[in-house]
Amino acid sequence: MNANPKFLSATATVDEAAIQPLPNSTKVYIQGSRPDIRVPMRKITQSDTAASFGFEKNPAIYVYDTSGPYTDPEAKIDIRSGLDTPRLPWILERKDTEELAGPTSEYGIERLNDPKLAELRFNLHRKPRRALAGKNVSQMHYARQGIITPEMEYVAIRENMNRRAYLEELKQSGPKGEKLAELMGRQHPGQSFGASIPQEITAEFVRSEIARGRAIIPANINHPEIEPMIIGRNFLVKINANIGNSAVTSSIGEEVEKMTWAIRWGGDNVMDLSTGKHIHETREWIIRNSPVPIGTVPIYQALEKVNGKAEDLTWEIFRDTLIEQAEQGVDYFTIHAGVLLRYVPMTAKRMTGIVSRGGSIMAKWCLAHHKESFLYEHFEDICEIMKAYDVSFSLGDGLRPGSIYDANDEAQLGELKTLGELTQIAWKHDVQVMIEGPGHVPMHLIKENMDLQLEQCHEAPFYTLGPLTTDIAPGYDHITSGIGAAQIGWYGTAMLCYVTPKEHLGLPNKVDVKDGIITYKIAAHAADLAKGHIGAQIRDNALSKARFEFRWDDQFNIGLDPDKAREFHDETLPKDSAKVAHFCSMCGPHFCSMKITQEVREYAAQQGITEIQALKKGMEVKSIEFVKSGSEIYQKQ
Amino acid sequence: MNANPKFLSATATVDEAAIQPLPNSTKVYIQGSRPDIRVPMRKITQSDTAASFGFEKNPAIYVYDTSGPYTDPEAKIDIRSGLDTPRLPWILERKDTEELAGPTSEYGIERLNDPKLAELRFNLHRKPRRALAGKNVSQMHYARQGIITPEMEYVAIRENMNRRAYLEELKQSGPKGEKLAELMGRQHPGQSFGASIPQEITAEFVRSEIARGRAIIPANINHPEIEPMIIGRNFLVKINANIGNSAVTSSIGEEVEKMTWAIRWGGDNVMDLSTGKHIHETREWIIRNSPVPIGTVPIYQALEKVNGKAEDLTWEIFRDTLIEQAEQGVDYFTIHAGVLLRYVPMTAKRMTGIVSRGGSIMAKWCLAHHKESFLYEHFEDICEIMKAYDVSFSLGDGLRPGSIYDANDEAQLGELKTLGELTQIAWKHDVQVMIEGPGHVPMHLIKENMDLQLEQCHEAPFYTLGPLTTDIAPGYDHITSGIGAAQIGWYGTAMLCYVTPKEHLGLPNKVDVKDGIITYKIAAHAADLAKGHIGAQIRDNALSKARFEFRWDDQFNIGLDPDKAREFHDETLPKDSAKVAHFCSMCGPHFCSMKITQEVREYAAQQGITEIQALKKGMEVKSIEFVKSGSEIYQKQ
Repeated sequence: MNANPKFLSATATVDEAAIQPLPNSTKVYIQGSRPDIRVPMRKITQSDTAASFGFEKNPAIYVYDTSGPYTDPEAKIDIRSGLDTPRLPWILERKDTEELAGPTSEYGIERLNDPKLAELRFNLHRKPRRALAGKNVSQMHYARQGIITPEMEYVAIRENMNRRAYLEELKQSGPKGEKLAELMGRQHPGQSFGASIPQEITAEFVRSEIARGRAIIPANINHPEIEPMIIGRNFLVKINANIGNSAVTSSIGEEVEKMTWAIRWGGDNVMDLSTGKHIHETREWIIRNSPVPIGTVPIYQALEKVNGKAEDLTWEIFRDTLIEQAEQGVDYFTIHAGVLLRYVPMTAKRMTGIVSRGGSIMAKWCLAHHKESFLYEHFEDICEIMKAYDVSFSLGDGLRPGSIYDANDEAQLGELKTLGELTQIAWKHDVQVMIEGPGHVPMHLIKENMDLQLEQCHEAPFYTLGPLTTDIAPGYDHITSGIGAAQIGWYGTAMLCYVTPKEHLGLPNKVDVKDGIITYKIAAHAADLAKGHIGAQIRDNALSKARFEFRWDDQFNIGLDPDKAREFHDETLPKDSAKVAHFCSMCGPHFCSMKITQEVREYAAQQGITEIQALKKGMEVKSIEFVKSGSEIYQKQ
Repeated sequence: MNANPKFLSATATVDEAAIQPLPNSTKVYIQGSRPDIRVPMRKITQSDTAASFGFEKNPAIYVYDTSGPYTDPEAKIDIRSGLDTPRLPWILERKDTEELAGPTSEYGIERLNDPKLAELRFNLHRKPRRALAGKNVSQMHYARQGIITPEMEYVAIRENMNRRAYLEELKQSGPKGEKLAELMGRQHPGQSFGASIPQEITAEFVRSEIARGRAIIPANINHPEIEPMIIGRNFLVKINANIGNSAVTSSIGEEVEKMTWAIRWGGDNVMDLSTGKHIHETREWIIRNSPVPIGTVPIYQALEKVNGKAEDLTWEIFRDTLIEQAEQGVDYFTIHAGVLLRYVPMTAKRMTGIVSRGGSIMAKWCLAHHKESFLYEHFEDICEIMKAYDVSFSLGDGLRPGSIYDANDEAQLGELKTLGELTQIAWKHDVQVMIEGPGHVPMHLIKENMDLQLEQCHEAPFYTLGPLTTDIAPGYDHITSGIGAAQIGWYGTAMLCYVTPKEHLGLPNKVDVKDGIITYKIAAHAADLAKGHIGAQIRDNALSKARFEFRWDDQFNIGLDPDKAREFHDETLPKDSAKVAHFCSMCGPHFCSMKITQEVREYAAQQGITEIQALKKGMEVKSIEFVKSGSEIYQKQ
């Protein structure tokens, strides 16, 4: 496939839809201990509570913002130049890296020197960096030395979502301030199944979690454009969006658009799973314009280099691919090193065999050569590369189940155990690791899978695809899997890889990407609430208060997708006046359940606390005042 | 609002979209112990496995079919005449009912005699029936006397989904038959949390479950059109679709279309929540054309009768409404009799107060009169009406939480306990009961809610609205609630009331109804799988086998929504040839993970079992044969 013409390097432009700020939202930056630690949040302004509901100020709330500079009107966005590089000073000041003369991989050099690619190529002036000989530049390595990096401080600030500022502003908002702050900040304690979620995320907590391998900050030194983020069971549950063209469909331009679109709606990470002709160039465009970590599956590209013949893959080709991609700035690599020879025959008994592309490539290689894969045999060599750029492992589940039938079978669980062993090898090298998980799993087997992962992989972050909880709904697998994702997130999974409605049927377009993202933001947030993640409920509380007080615009704006909520509302009540109406189309103007509570409250206020207590005890109180004074449920139109 | 002109009684026509059979599907009827017990199933024909995958016959599978005669090309559908009345002989032969001269409710008589309504009115020639004096015509009453009614036998056959015929046909399908039947019928044992799901549903089991109140068959004697179905924790999880106009929007015609549309996609029950001007006439059209049980909330109509002034409601008006609706054939009534005076002030502390319409009406009435509601005070009188027509109680949760903040609070749990007490009163009268549940509940509080319901309501079927697991996604509440619905279904809920994407924003249109239905079919089925409901996994297995064997059409057709799956697939690979292609657009023709398993299997077959065992033990075996003989992953195009 050819690149979309507008992404030829001279004329590429950003997707206009990706750079509009969200309604009533402004980008704010919370400064850390130094001026160059500026952590973005989205501040959503709210209107006051109407006098009829008892006037109250509703301070702006802050939400986690993955959209990067795109939604900042102050930022100058030029796709051809890529994003600014806020991390670069942090990397440089550590003085443990060197600038290379250029790409050092054979393939990287070849692509750079191919004049036919000039038009497609992103015009990068910066040279790649690598750790100085003998140095390890991983965040885990720093953490284990007791160093709190700017990246660690950054994610600590980010995770707290400026909660204290919001609650403080509530306290100061008026005579009811203290009470309101208490109300709006309250949340259910949650059930975290042994997680250790602190009241406040500190930089030291981040460091300690990374040091013990329970969290990672994917942050290649060649991706200085990122706004650092953390993946771990004691932090907010994250989501990953997969994009990528195939030989059958889509172009470079479309993939860059999908990336900016995915992060607009909340994608914390993006994996580029391209398998087409211009993998190298597509990736460069994506990374240079991505404020979120980018993951890849290097074996896909290695396979292209041997014309699709898995048996012809070699360690040398794979190694060159790792270096090529590490020097472009890929933040994590999916490596299917757990597909061992002895597990492959176990899949012959399955309903759907091997469904992981990477897993199938390695299985074929293992069978053809009848030996363990070069990924497994060279695992420590791979670690050496990872630590020279700080690429994190995403240990691939090449044998994940592709159907309910195959869930939690011996092949899957055998591989999981091997991934646990590899985790310890990686940790020996201070290399960051997360573990990929399934797949298709019925609800009652999800917890078993999670518990085994925690135990066998020593709490290295789990990163699951769904899981899909049934096979019978092609076209709706964002939902079959969103159900499983919410649960496994609750049980301890750190990042959820989205599934779009097109799963099993085709490659997702932008509509599908958004549906997948929003579904997974829901799953991740439901998991945060159930775990009792501190502050998670603030957004629910704010939205519910807006809903109860008929602040329609606030209800839309605080939601995950203000555009959709507004569109749905306007289908039945399009007039602007309906946005301030104290009713909605479900019950109509003459009938509304929300109003009764207002009446109950007014009654409570009038009668005083004694009367209320009497009511509670079922004692007789005069009711005449209520009838006289109660404002009517049924508003006159 | 006026009725849609095409639903004027003279010219009303059925929605053409509702009467097309689904792809490759035929309606079959399984006969019971007598010729007039004919239980519908949808039979989905499959193609054979291609020779390249090892030829196999794939017998048709049978799925539960809620669509009624609409999808039967043999049936003559005329909306103006309503459906046939297969239950009528069963009702008549019991000789415990009498035909009335006409409606006996004041309101029913009034509407019948109002000439202005002639054009809108469904032209019903049949007279209503009622139990003979002193008789109780509830299914529970028969069950407790040890009688197995035709309705009970019907649902028993229905629940088994003709599983044995499918497995038997597999066994007979060829030399691999026995093995295939074993494979395709196998499923995970599940975790049922104390449910008692039998290997085979017998009519006697149905009877015993109804007798002890653990299941209900909603089946008003004035709704002889229905195809009986059962709601209980030891049966397949069911779903309910709400339809209904409001003063702001929609018409009779639209509501009838929504009903036929909802059952096409799997709605087991439909509730008519209309609050507009022609509630009575709308309901008649819906019931006469509905093969599924219809539920209502009678207080909505009673309120219309007092011009929306809750305080003016009386027992007499409510009683007349119950009789009016019972004589039309409503199968279950939501009755908010658990909203007690002492619970109302508890809601003053909530984030979102009272969000149930019925709950708010009763709360207002209680406060205004300062006494317990007529629903509570006259509960036994209501039981007398219910048993004269076999209307089931759906005890409404008027104090369900409307936000995460309010989940499982004292108001909600107080009411639940009262509903348990009312259940025992209803059971004293042999009246069938289910219990409505929330609402908005974070995941970790769902099980607590379920367990309390089982305990306090003595395993009367739970019927929940979602629950929504977060408040932050208006526009996607089918998903926020589908997550909770799947879980609560797994834990023991018998029926899930759908939530559409329009929840909180507007009334659902047909697109929303379908999205809600499919989401809830997914949730219900995921719950069946997790509970280990016998036979539930057959459909997953069949779909996954089709997927693995690249039988695209079978994959679409076995799914919940063949139209959507086909449409998504065709977006990227529209040619018919792609439907038989051994690849898909996700990975493209040169790359496919499914093929490797085929190779592994072929390898296994060639090497024989000894070699495979050697492989498992990690021993050396010759690999040259594999390389020589393995068919390539990468198909030449």
